[in-house]
Amino acid sequence: MMIEGKLTIAEVLKRIEKYIHRTPVMSSRQVNGLSDSNVFFKCENFQRMGAFKMRGAMNAILSFSQEQLALGVATHSSGNFAQALSLAAKEMNVKAYIVMPENAPAIKKAAVKGYGGQVIECAPTLQAREHTLNEVVEQIGATFVHPYNQKEVIMGQGTAALELMQEVSNLDYIITPVGGGGLISGTALAVKEFSPKTKVIGGEPFGADDAWRSVQAGHIIPMENPQTIADGLRTSLGDQTFPIIQEHVEEIIRVEEDEIIAAMRFIWERMKIIIEPSSAVAVAALLKDRQRFEGKRTGIIISGGNVDLSGFDLFK
Amino acid sequence: MMIEGKLTIAEVLKRIEKYIHRTPVMSSRQVNGLSDSNVFFKCENFQRMGAFKMRGAMNAILSFSQEQLALGVATHSSGNFAQALSLAAKEMNVKAYIVMPENAPAIKKAAVKGYGGQVIECAPTLQAREHTLNEVVEQIGATFVHPYNQKEVIMGQGTAALELMQEVSNLDYIITPVGGGGLISGTALAVKEFSPKTKVIGGEPFGADDAWRSVQAGHIIPMENPQTIADGLRTSLGDQTFPIIQEHVEEIIRVEEDEIIAAMRFIWERMKIIIEPSSAVAVAALLKDRQRFEGKRTGIIISGGNVDLSGFDLFK
Repeated sequence: MMIEGKLTIAEVLKRIEKYIHRTPVMSSRQVNGLSDSNVFFKCENFQRMGAFKMRGAMNAILSFSQEQLALGVATHSSGNFAQALSLAAKEMNVKAYIVMPENAPAIKKAAVKGYGGQVIECAPTLQAREHTLNEVVEQIGATFVHPYNQKEVIMGQGTAALELMQEVSNLDYIITPVGGGGLISGTALAVKEFSPKTKVIGGEPFGADDAWRSVQAGHIIPMENPQTIADGLRTSLGDQTFPIIQEHVEEIIRVEEDEIIAAMRFIWERMKIIIEPSSAVAVAALLKDRQRFEGKRTGIIISGGNVDLSGFDLFK
Repeated sequence: MMIEGKLTIAEVLKRIEKYIHRTPVMSSRQVNGLSDSNVFFKCENFQRMGAFKMRGAMNAILSFSQEQLALGVATHSSGNFAQALSLAAKEMNVKAYIVMPENAPAIKKAAVKGYGGQVIECAPTLQAREHTLNEVVEQIGATFVHPYNQKEVIMGQGTAALELMQEVSNLDYIITPVGGGGLISGTALAVKEFSPKTKVIGGEPFGADDAWRSVQAGHIIPMENPQTIADGLRTSLGDQTFPIIQEHVEEIIRVEEDEIIAAMRFIWERMKIIIEPSSAVAVAALLKDRQRFEGKRTGIIISGGNVDLSGFDLFK
């Protein structure tokens, strides 16, 4: 695993590319008109299992030895990373153990099982989660993969931005949502490697603005009781992601809940693609700070498209 | 206008291509797995104004003389064609007069106005509609464009299938939804011209199955009181579209309302694209008659993506 530090993001992409989709870059006259910017959407909602997380999970698994893989991999997540690690493990015929709180939505557990992951339930506390995960690691011998606070995962997530920059030259900005910071720190490393003049901007909900607060304070301030519909962004930064953000991210733009919903609706209606609330946060950041992006070439990483559609009248 | 009969669909495509999007062809492992077919979606939901109708409207307008265009164009429609003709006219700096029933949803009238069309309201009866349209044609001198029962429109709609066949070779089938028959008859002409071995299949709701009944009877049986959520398919065949369907369409597959809704949800959830109920009818036809398509290469024209999203809890 130590060799990882010497891989470039381009080499990581070569390693994972046969297991992932090369997702399309889309643009929209209406978005360009509304934002006065020239916007390029990297559509990771079309990625396998519906989110960029497949990239980091795949890269982590490919960095492990055969001996490690023989005993399986494990993580704690009730979101997209749980599905991503399950599917990535399945690709390698490896077992994935996913620790989830017992009160996680049935639909999330079903999704993990659908990708071949084994759900291990625990009480809905941080202590129970860590205790259960430690048991899996010690008793089964599975290798732990952190959903975002791990070099291999971060570099894998950076490949989305790399593909975007390979396809669209001279971007002035790339905007990503910020949750635990895996996507934005991977993006920052990709930018540093491939297009150092491009500036990286984060979008974050006011109701889960630990990244903004942490950058202001100069040290990690964990999020307590996050309140946002962007469920992928309720996590706090880790000690691997924070320093990269501190050093390489130009600014974190915070947005209100109604701005997130309006941005999501705009993209669904005008671009005809399903993006999840977390992705809409990046779009809302673009629209909130319009002047910054005016006349610029702006990339946005659409992080995923996993939305529970039972909230739509027709589907009830 | 008589020269139109001598144009091929390939020539029509050349004429309109700078005014339309070349929409992507998408595929999905999940759809392939569920259908046991190899399915290629021609995504006209990503077309300008959100539906294939832009193609036919644009071709009609480009077939008119400068003298005709100077006086504008007119149609009756409260659906996608109203928006398509408005936008196509705007491209040519021409006026578009759209006759709509006064009880049409405000959102539809606003969409037409948004594309620069002039809404002319009439009482919600067939007689009032024709009377009002005749007035516009006689008093203003605008040229009438039928939403589907007109050669130029039909050939324009056929360019979607042509692009699909240019990109994906050796299709065994192409499935389209059937409303007034403009899309399926254009598709049939494109197939005849470009890939005569490909079979054309229609998908139609049981609640608006005039095409199926008409083909069975050997003459047009207009739809009375259509009942389906696929609002684009409530219209009846015309004397231009019916003979083409009779001669060139292999079969019309009818589907239930719950099959339409399930197909729509499946595509939204798995492919992360917004398709309108009319498009879901074609997907439902694929899933309904699975055996026919098993192991085959099947194209589906996703006709559009204009859905009223106010039915989604988050957007209320």
